[in-house]
Amino acid sequence: MESWIHVLNLAGVAVCAISGTLMAFQKRMDGFGVVVLASATAVGGGTLRDMMLDLPVFWIEDTDYLYVTCIAALITIIWLRLTSLFPYHYLLVADAFGLALFNVVGIEKALGTGAGMAVAIAMGTITGVFGGLLRDVICREVPLVLSGELYAITCIVGGGAYALFYTLQLPDIWCVVAALVTTVCLRLGAMRWHWELPVFRTE
Amino acid sequence: MESWIHVLNLAGVAVCAISGTLMAFQKRMDGFGVVVLASATAVGGGTLRDMMLDLPVFWIEDTDYLYVTCIAALITIIWLRLTSLFPYHYLLVADAFGLALFNVVGIEKALGTGAGMAVAIAMGTITGVFGGLLRDVICREVPLVLSGELYAITCIVGGGAYALFYTLQLPDIWCVVAALVTTVCLRLGAMRWHWELPVFRTE
Amino acid sequence: MESWIHVLNLAGVAVCAISGTLMAFQKRMDGFGVVVLASATAVGGGTLRDMMLDLPVFWIEDTDYLYVTCIAALITIIWLRLTSLFPYHYLLVADAFGLALFNVVGIEKALGTGAGMAVAIAMGTITGVFGGLLRDVICREVPLVLSGELYAITCIVGGGAYALFYTLQLPDIWCVVAALVTTVCLRLGAMRWHWELPVFRTE
Repeated sequence: MESWIHVLNLAGVAVCAISGTLMAFQKRMDGFGVVVLASATAVGGGTLRDMMLDLPVFWIEDTDYLYVTCIAALITIIWLRLTSLFPYHYLLVADAFGLALFNVVGIEKALGTGAGMAVAIAMGTITGVFGGLLRDVICREVPLVLSGELYAITCIVGGGAYALFYTLQLPDIWCVVAALVTTVCLRLGAMRWHWELPVFRTE
Repeated sequence: MESWIHVLNLAGVAVCAISGTLMAFQKRMDGFGVVVLASATAVGGGTLRDMMLDLPVFWIEDTDYLYVTCIAALITIIWLRLTSLFPYHYLLVADAFGLALFNVVGIEKALGTGAGMAVAIAMGTITGVFGGLLRDVICREVPLVLSGELYAITCIVGGGAYALFYTLQLPDIWCVVAALVTTVCLRLGAMRWHWELPVFRTE
Repeated sequence: MESWIHVLNLAGVAVCAISGTLMAFQKRMDGFGVVVLASATAVGGGTLRDMMLDLPVFWIEDTDYLYVTCIAALITIIWLRLTSLFPYHYLLVADAFGLALFNVVGIEKALGTGAGMAVAIAMGTITGVFGGLLRDVICREVPLVLSGELYAITCIVGGGAYALFYTLQLPDIWCVVAALVTTVCLRLGAMRWHWELPVFRTE
């Protein structure tokens, strides 16, 4: 279970590093811009989570995450030098899985420190979306998570599914699967059918 | 004293959550944009303070703050759906009280860890203004605290009043009241008479 | 050695505070804008480093840094009121030295906590460039570190020089000097001959 989450966490970091590198490519950044955007997107959310929970920051404890970030960015750069085509669609699907996994990792880590369920759901959401928020703020984009399609709300609903199964005292693995499936399905559905959540009345 | 500060702190969080929600409304954000802006404005300053002082983050220890943030955002959303009128003026007055209280909470928390007075004043100011700064950076506004009317300077002067009374060895409650009154009066005066603090010569 | 690094660290903080104040002057900010930009640029990188390494934040432990920041900002303000001429060129040279020193301080602090070399290089780079990144994001500029001339890459190469000498088990002072010289020379060279590091193919 532990090592299985570790591998999926590394996969999530790699996907986010690729998405940061693509943003740097779109913005015609060079050199360090790529390094900053790839790392901020990949480890930003988990870093903030660990600092707030007063845990050791995950990529300081385990250097694998730094290497994966660098390798993912490097492969993306080489790919983009060879061809200007990039399978953006598959990246969005992979990103949905990364979001769901970061969400679960955040919830589990928060519960492990003895935090309450409301805090755990907040931590899951922060882990999932803060990296992308940072990427967009640095690039002076209107953050994607702040407008349009369901994005971070899927983390909150996924956290709600975790909380439900947790309250029913089902085994830990069921809670994890419930949160993963809920988050991924909601996110893919939102991408496919452009689900939105209008809270203000528009004239 | 302790519980009295707790209640006022909750009030400050609620006021900031409302101001974040209003900004999301103005920017035509939806769904998660409201959640991000309301929470960042409400708990951003205190979170940074607690992380820098290496204290447990206040809303992780006490979930009340998360619930108050959500309820304040929800009531604001319902209000804005019912009517497009909003008493912005009263909000600014309430915001001045919230600023003063966050300032005092930051100073007290910093002094409680054994920090010096200069650090305590910096912590009070950070607690008071960082949430609003975050809100404006996320929305790509020129941060309000960075230009025009006295805003954060009122925190520094309020902290100076605290330091003066503290040095005179007056009881703790007097220091708190001095800082609150100084900050609120300066801020209300700055709003009423548009006080500014020009540091550069303009041609 | 210890006190020698302390003095150079104070010098780095002063240079960054001056650069933040100059940015506030260019943006026609007033009052608190100057305070925010000067402090964020001067202590932002070190604060993030200390929070991630779970060390006491350096300016909370040693108030000297706060005073140096305020005095450097004040002198810059007085200078700019007396004359609109400012030796920007010398500031850039001083900034290269500040960058190199922040880099070395970050590496040494990270190694002191038992972190690996990859993490130490990342910490050196973060200490060197995060303050300037923060300054540019707050001012809604495209961060300078993200485009054009070599800037943060010089920190990474300087960290590589440190790592090389460290692996050869040379005395600590040699590692420090190697990192300082490499970073300063690369940065001055990049400024003089406009070295760039294009990673994406441009049409």
